[in-house]
Amino acid sequence: MKKIKVGIMGYGNLGKAVKKIVENDSRFKLIAVFSRRSIEIENVSVEKVENLKKYIDKIDIMFLCGGSSSTLMDDAIVALKYFNTIDAFDTHKLIKKHLKNCEKVAINSKKVAFCSFGWDPGLFSLMRTLFNSLGKKTFTTWGKGVSQGHTEAIKKIENVKDAIQFTVPNRAAVNKLKRGEACEINNLHKRDCYVVADPEYHALIKNKIVTMPNYFAGYKTRVNYVNQDELNSLKSAGHRGEVFTLGNNFNFSLKTDSNPNLTAKILISYSITMVEFIKKQKYGAYTILDIPFKYLTKNYIEFI
Amino acid sequence: MKKIKVGIMGYGNLGKAVKKIVENDSRFKLIAVFSRRSIEIENVSVEKVENLKKYIDKIDIMFLCGGSSSTLMDDAIVALKYFNTIDAFDTHKLIKKHLKNCEKVAINSKKVAFCSFGWDPGLFSLMRTLFNSLGKKTFTTWGKGVSQGHTEAIKKIENVKDAIQFTVPNRAAVNKLKRGEACEINNLHKRDCYVVADPEYHALIKNKIVTMPNYFAGYKTRVNYVNQDELNSLKSAGHRGEVFTLGNNFNFSLKTDSNPNLTAKILISYSITMVEFIKKQKYGAYTILDIPFKYLTKNYIEFI
Repeated sequence: MKKIKVGIMGYGNLGKAVKKIVENDSRFKLIAVFSRRSIEIENVSVEKVENLKKYIDKIDIMFLCGGSSSTLMDDAIVALKYFNTIDAFDTHKLIKKHLKNCEKVAINSKKVAFCSFGWDPGLFSLMRTLFNSLGKKTFTTWGKGVSQGHTEAIKKIENVKDAIQFTVPNRAAVNKLKRGEACEINNLHKRDCYVVADPEYHALIKNKIVTMPNYFAGYKTRVNYVNQDELNSLKSAGHRGEVFTLGNNFNFSLKTDSNPNLTAKILISYSITMVEFIKKQKYGAYTILDIPFKYLTKNYIEFI
Repeated sequence: MKKIKVGIMGYGNLGKAVKKIVENDSRFKLIAVFSRRSIEIENVSVEKVENLKKYIDKIDIMFLCGGSSSTLMDDAIVALKYFNTIDAFDTHKLIKKHLKNCEKVAINSKKVAFCSFGWDPGLFSLMRTLFNSLGKKTFTTWGKGVSQGHTEAIKKIENVKDAIQFTVPNRAAVNKLKRGEACEINNLHKRDCYVVADPEYHALIKNKIVTMPNYFAGYKTRVNYVNQDELNSLKSAGHRGEVFTLGNNFNFSLKTDSNPNLTAKILISYSITMVEFIKKQKYGAYTILDIPFKYLTKNYIEFI
């Protein structure tokens, strides 16, 4: 089999994780990493995003690894002019728009775009769809793990020096649902915040956190003040999550020591399925719900 | 939407469960039940299998509910001449053959055949394929629940009046795998047998059970003698199972009070996806690995 020629656009934690897997998987060949920043990577061509066009016909699949809340939506539109793309875009409320944007460019440029292929959205989207189709009310929990969005929201508060926010499932509520009893959905998670700030600001910051709309207001939120060393020791790339039905008749769970590694693994698996779409010239934008599992492996019959 | 016109072929536990769901789901209309036996069902047309042809163009999807070890493979070949079919055929080693048989007839008759859409094979096949594609060694456990095949095998032994066999996961071994430690795969289940027989045959029957190749030899097997009342009280339609990876990073589990009801529910969900295949004239035989989850619901975007 010919190797899949890969580009990586965006070189944060996810980009690094994708690079590491691709370099150790003989099905792939890494052609170049594209970044807006001036970076150097040993044994890898690093290019500015402006030079994407130079790689037309040299890259089969571009892994979009920019941040969902920063560059990813724009990156997709630019990259899709020249390459098939796959991403783990995870801003749920913008997925429809992201798909629509990608569909338009992909159809014009005769490319395939795989959108939001992470674990949530991604694997969890599959499970929610399946469980709901089986007639079951379905719930999702995340954590214990760091929420990047909530962490950033705290960091933006004046006089916060550093912060980290863990999303933690509320075990009592989760167990209630698993026993088949109803439960307030807002009650399903707790938000544990660790904040570095001078003591005179503690009361004010705490108030700003717990009343922050969309992020913390209405949630059970705990604010803990720590020093920088303590905060650093808390930082963790681990995460976990669960999709389950009322009564727990169906349950899907995952856990990882490294959230970016897990997302990278899923992207890699599904990039294999993308080859089928490219071969069949099925141009356009797709979500994980469009992909038959058969394409994940050559040996599918042995897993049936 | 036009209702999906349904036929049911085979009226055991699974056929009854499918009938019950179909009658309570406004997307479907039950047209007839086909049986080799002479049966009557209130408010339902019951037909002999010989009269299948009479229903050509009157049934959109035929649910094949005969036993996997008895009539199902033959039923499929007959029914596919006239109807699109869906089944939960579960004899793993014959699935390839079943698919091939169905593919041939389906192509000729311009029909769609969905083969082995239960929970295992079925939902578990999906998970094994997904987990393996993510680079993880994957294990399956079944139970605690009755294995029909093992129960039948015991009942065939001379002087056995009645019997039931529970497949029970070996918790110690399962937990070892979930911690990421290696384990003998033969050690993953225990087989608990309950047998009704006269005392003079107990030693002989026990020996025949524990040495039976393919079924019990090499497995941890416990044989318990009980009287008929005790046996009747043990009979249960409940079942459960789990697919997980070494280290338990990915885990899918299900449980049910009624094995036939669960299988029927899965068949019903996937019969909805079949409509897409029929519309698109994708004639041939398919497994659950061929079906994009998107087809399971009209509202897929809300589950992403």
